[in-house]
Amino acid sequence: MSASPAPRLDTVVVAGVGLIGASFALALRAAGHARTVAGIGRTRANLDAAIARGAIDRGHEVQSDWLHELAGADLVLIATPVAQVEPLLARIGPHLGARSTVTDAGSTKQDVVAAAHAVLGDALPRFVPAHPIAGSDRTGAVAGDAALFRDREVIVTPLAETAPDALHVATAAWAATGARVSSLTPERHDRLLAAVSHLPHMLAFALVDELARRSDAAETFAHAGSGLRDVTRIAASSPEMWRDIALANKDALADELVLYQAALDRLAQSLADGDGRALEQLFVRAATARRAWSASPTYPRAPSAPGDDDA
Amino acid sequence: MSASPAPRLDTVVVAGVGLIGASFALALRAAGHARTVAGIGRTRANLDAAIARGAIDRGHEVQSDWLHELAGADLVLIATPVAQVEPLLARIGPHLGARSTVTDAGSTKQDVVAAAHAVLGDALPRFVPAHPIAGSDRTGAVAGDAALFRDREVIVTPLAETAPDALHVATAAWAATGARVSSLTPERHDRLLAAVSHLPHMLAFALVDELARRSDAAETFAHAGSGLRDVTRIAASSPEMWRDIALANKDALADELVLYQAALDRLAQSLADGDGRALEQLFVRAATARRAWSASPTYPRAPSAPGDDDA
Repeated sequence: MSASPAPRLDTVVVAGVGLIGASFALALRAAGHARTVAGIGRTRANLDAAIARGAIDRGHEVQSDWLHELAGADLVLIATPVAQVEPLLARIGPHLGARSTVTDAGSTKQDVVAAAHAVLGDALPRFVPAHPIAGSDRTGAVAGDAALFRDREVIVTPLAETAPDALHVATAAWAATGARVSSLTPERHDRLLAAVSHLPHMLAFALVDELARRSDAAETFAHAGSGLRDVTRIAASSPEMWRDIALANKDALADELVLYQAALDRLAQSLADGDGRALEQLFVRAATARRAWSASPTYPRAPSAPGDDDA
Repeated sequence: MSASPAPRLDTVVVAGVGLIGASFALALRAAGHARTVAGIGRTRANLDAAIARGAIDRGHEVQSDWLHELAGADLVLIATPVAQVEPLLARIGPHLGARSTVTDAGSTKQDVVAAAHAVLGDALPRFVPAHPIAGSDRTGAVAGDAALFRDREVIVTPLAETAPDALHVATAAWAATGARVSSLTPERHDRLLAAVSHLPHMLAFALVDELARRSDAAETFAHAGSGLRDVTRIAASSPEMWRDIALANKDALADELVLYQAALDRLAQSLADGDGRALEQLFVRAATARRAWSASPTYPRAPSAPGDDDA
């Protein structure tokens, strides 16, 4: 057995040159790839910032004519807000080169896969949906960071139709950013992320809102310590992004909320019963599992920025 | 107006020389107080560790005769597990000096106040219940840390009967450890801590247990990022201690669980309705409140140790 040859990642198009798009380009360049990067963005100012940052070589406003960049592209990353993904896929499909690979960076995958099926047509085999589990509360090309994906996980969710060479290119590109790349079906991805990311965000948002709406909210927060601080860190995340994620993964998230509410019901019942034994058993199970996780090789060890948001 | 003279904190008795008791003695010593410290503990080995650590000068096993240490004590700290507080108060009451002050470090205060009322008798005015909002997952005198309370909050909950000079001594002692000292009624303390500490611990325990009981728990945790990590950090806390806290503050905690479940119900309903506007409004309120808190002067800024547990 020999490994496949390293694929070409020389000519790259990044559609959406925000934190994720700029960081992706910078990380590829730091790894010796992405000799030429064209950026597509909404504002000239951000494109110019991306050029100044060294993330891209040239920038095109999204409504201008830039589709000629696609034919020679080894790799196209779509890193726009989720609402723009389907129209963008529809627009680029007919202009992609036969060897171009397309990947994305969205936090939910079944919706992206449905969009690709709906609009990509003959280019469908070139698409490799991906989800880098990394982020920050900083936005824009100016926040681009070549180390953003280092030691983070990137989950690719290839379609049945995805061409093996496209999967190879996308996997190599994400690996070149320093990430661990794993693979799941889109359904499995959305189910697992509902549990480990979307549900915890909902819990944190709901907790802060519940405390903040009280008449004594200021005094309440004034007496809180590092426990509440860490439980609620992700409640400072982007409301718009989380609205989109919650709606895109509505069914799996609703299932997770039902399971969690049932767990809280059981805890509340043990408390009402004054059942110290049941409470302690619950806490022992949780503490044991939490300590085992923090000792495992996949435990996320990188420190959190104040607004680190790994949606 | 002139400030009260600095009270004497020379002769100190620490009953329970674990993390909290040893750290308290070390912090007082670092501030130039606690010339003589007698430690009372369950095991000779831990008392010897406390002596070696420089936290105490001499150690008495709790079942031995050490009550003679009390008559000359400026300050007595009770830092034992909660179940031992009432028998200990009953035992020390008759032996306290007329000028001795007693404080404690329990995470709930109405239960401690009830115990003091039940057993302290004539010594009741000498008691100043206190709750240092600081901790660690490390235990024992060997974990003692003179900086444990620095920049943390200590809430004192004086009784109607508490003597002003006792309150002055206890407040000065906790302030000397580097903590910010604030004052609440015991009822208000337990209500606020139910909201900002006890409820978040229950939510974290329940979340980890809910994920850990699944047949695919290993794969689930393997795909989790820094969001779940931080939301669940406190689920590694001591099960025994949290069983005691939950039971001691059962009614207030049950009320908090009801409010929180109602908040989750509202969120789940917005999700079921596909009501993106309601979801976004909720997330905006939460993110705004969370960001305002992190910009406030009382926001806990000290970094968390992996098992930091500010019960």
